[in-house]
This record gives sequence, C-alpha cells and structure tokens, in this order.
Amino acid sequence: MLTFIGLGLFDKTDVSEKGLSRIRNADRVYLECYTSRLMGATLPDLEQFYGRQVTPLYRSAVEQDPDAMLEEAVAKDVVFLCAGDPMVSTTHADLRMRAASRGIPTAIIHAASIASAVCGISGLQNYRFGKSCSLPFPQKNWFPTTPLDVIVTNLSLRLHTLVYLDIQDDRYMTVSDAVALLEEMVDARKVKIPLYVGIARAGSDLPVVRAGTAEKIRACDFGPPLHILIVPAELHDMEREYLEMFAGL
Amino acid sequence: MLTFIGLGLFDKTDVSEKGLSRIRNADRVYLECYTSRLMGATLPDLEQFYGRQVTPLYRSAVEQDPDAMLEEAVAKDVVFLCAGDPMVSTTHADLRMRAASRGIPTAIIHAASIASAVCGISGLQNYRFGKSCSLPFPQKNWFPTTPLDVIVTNLSLRLHTLVYLDIQDDRYMTVSDAVALLEEMVDARKVKIPLYVGIARAGSDLPVVRAGTAEKIRACDFGPPLHILIVPAELHDMEREYLEMFAGL
Repeated sequence: MLTFIGLGLFDKTDVSEKGLSRIRNADRVYLECYTSRLMGATLPDLEQFYGRQVTPLYRSAVEQDPDAMLEEAVAKDVVFLCAGDPMVSTTHADLRMRAASRGIPTAIIHAASIASAVCGISGLQNYRFGKSCSLPFPQKNWFPTTPLDVIVTNLSLRLHTLVYLDIQDDRYMTVSDAVALLEEMVDARKVKIPLYVGIARAGSDLPVVRAGTAEKIRACDFGPPLHILIVPAELHDMEREYLEMFAGL
Repeated sequence: MLTFIGLGLFDKTDVSEKGLSRIRNADRVYLECYTSRLMGATLPDLEQFYGRQVTPLYRSAVEQDPDAMLEEAVAKDVVFLCAGDPMVSTTHADLRMRAASRGIPTAIIHAASIASAVCGISGLQNYRFGKSCSLPFPQKNWFPTTPLDVIVTNLSLRLHTLVYLDIQDDRYMTVSDAVALLEEMVDARKVKIPLYVGIARAGSDLPVVRAGTAEKIRACDFGPPLHILIVPAELHDMEREYLEMFAGL
C-alpha cells in the first residue's frame, strides 16, 4: 500500500491526526523534498516527532527511479510525505498512477495547501481566483513571460491570480524578486499591475502579509521563505477592508 | 483572542495537530455549522475527541449576533471551528474583521480544503482550474444560470471548473441533482458539457470518484453527502489516464 500524506504548510504540527497516526504505523516513511518544503521543521524534527526514520527523496528518485519504493509498497505499508496537500504537484499524480498500474492500493490523506490558505491570509475571496501561474527564475536566454499572460487574462476577467514562486535546490524566490521580474515584463508589454499582495511563512504563528504597489512591496522585508504572491483584480469593498486591517493597504 | 481553526474534510481526525492542541487548551470552543459539515463526525464525537464542550453556531449567531462570542474573546481564548479551511467562506472573513476592529487578536490554523483536495482525488491539475462557482437549489421564480456562464468561460479558456453544491439546513445537493440542473441550462443555451467528474465524501477512506457523460454520471449512485462536481476542460493525456485509472472514465 502506498499512502500519500500531506504535511500542511509550515511545521511538524500541521499534519492531520489521521496522517500522523498512519505515519506512526507505517512500515516505511519517505519525504518528498523537491516540490516544496516545510520551512519550520528539519528532518530530525520530523523523525523525533514521528518516532520514525524518514528517508528524504529528491526529484530523480521519484521521477526516474521509483521502482525500489514501489517494490516495497507491494507488501509493506509505505507512506510518501509532502508539504502542502498531495498532488497539487503533478509529479505525485504520476507516482500514484505508477503504483496503481502495478496493482498497489493507494490512498491520499489531505492537508492544508497554500492554494486555499491564501484566502484566509489575504481576505481575497476563493471564488474570485482565476487560473494560477508559476514564476520561474530566469535563466540564460530564457525569460518566459507566460505568467504575465495569465495575470493579464485574469485581470480582464476581474479575477485574482496566485503566483507560485520558484524553488531551486536551496534557492527560494522572494516576493521582491518576483515583483521585480513581473514589473520588467509589465514595462515591456505596456500593461500595469496596480496592486500586489505578498505573503511569507503562511501557516506559521507570524506570517507576514503586505499589500501595495510594486514600489512599496519591493521595499518590504518579508523575512525568510517560503514566499508567495497574489496579483489581485479590482477589490470588492470587503476585500479592501480586510487588506487594510491585516496587510497594511 | 479568537482563533479560526479548520477541521479539514471529513471526520474528527482531519484536524491538524496544531489545531487540536489549541482546541484542547482553549477556554471556549464554538463550531460553525452552516457553511459546511464534517459528515464523518457528530457533535458528541467531536466533544469526546477534544475532551471539551462544543457549542454549535448557526448563521444568525455568527452574522447577526456575534457580540457575545466577541465579548468573550476579549479576555478569553476562544476558538471558532469550521469544516475545511477557514475563510474560504466570506462569512469567516467578516467575523475576523469584527474581532480586529474591537482590538481582539486573531489567528488562523489552516486545514485541508476541498478546493485543493479535488486535485489529488481527480488528478485534474491545480493550475488548470479557473474561477469556481456555486450551484444553488432552484427556488420559486429563481433559477440563476450564472454557474453555467462561469463554466462556459472556463471551457473557452481550456480551464476546469469546480462546482460547489448547495447545502440548505439538512438538504444536500447531490451530483445527480447538479448535473440535471446544469443540463437544463445547457439545453436552453445550446452549449454542451462533454464530461463531468463527480466526487462524494472527499477525505473519507472510501471517496467515490466517477467521470463520464451527463447520462452516465446522473445514473451513478454516489451515496451519502457531501458531494462536489467538476466540469473539466479538454483533458491533458495524464489527466485522462488518471481518470481512467481512478474514476472509471
């Protein structure tokens, strides 16, 4: 059996009771370490909390060589942990299909995801979010502007955009980086983004949430990762009031 | 202090460790009972699990008369529980603002929400979902077709639509009801929805997930509530394969 267990947003206590009891009873515990991270817990923290050895997995072990793990899951109770809610990343869906095609039963234990947590943190209404996008670090000769296409389409439909910020090994894109990248695209395209909402350390006791213009948000110190960005559409009154109260708008 | 705590999707064990410890240490525990429900737990189940008395709250107590609760939160540690992740419903955002305007500190403990859980359950990719919509029970002289407008716009952008199904007191809209209502709108508008994905009891050990045409999905028995519906856009290969494996496509 292979069970995908979401660990939630920030630290070891964001896992559900259901998830925790399955981790403690599993034969083998793997932790996916490449699509996201629990910034409030180290691997030894998790091992101590679960009372179990935890084996970290990087992209190649999951996407190219999952055979050893799947082989184990034929006869044993294997759990696959990941930050957030499982399968918001497609790589997990692929692994579940590989398991099922070998006849291995699978299950999912859900957890908090940044995709819904941003509603409470920002007060921006869930049903007003359009398609989300990811903003990658630019690389030599590669500076994709598709994130701005998504934002512009959403703005024209009066919808908010959630912008996932790139993670590469130990390099985490900040809100400042992201706003700078988007403003560069905006200048080239002659459009305008009037408002940004930056969020840092969602799920922690002290998340930072700030709303404002590009200039204001780029100057804010959001502190350590993870960061995420929202480009809101024209605000409803209640959304504006919430951002004024909780995000310094 | 007023802390909003999400209870996740289905039963008492879907709360996070962090949420559970705050519930057990609170001075007073309220449960919001009108925007959603934990179908796998009764009020006595929760009280026994928490070791605490739990006071249920209905819409009027939260939206019109929250004064007594807010008064308590000035000096005491009050927790406000709700199914899913807090503030996916706007009524919770309103309550948080009322608390803050009285100078009461607030916090949010996140949990699994159906909004992200559907990705794992259906294999439909998170970044391909557009704006969501709610489908209300039709009432005398009132049969709003705005949900279909949202679906049609999303389909034209090749985006999936999550359709929240109405809850009224103890009446829960089923996937069958929802497909029948949408097909009525579709006929009137001369458009076509080629595929539906129905989900029942997300977060339970045995969620039901079925994909197919209107005719097929209407004939499926999804069992007890809660139900939710997705109208997918044209599928990517991996999405199709996932639905074939896990949803009988």
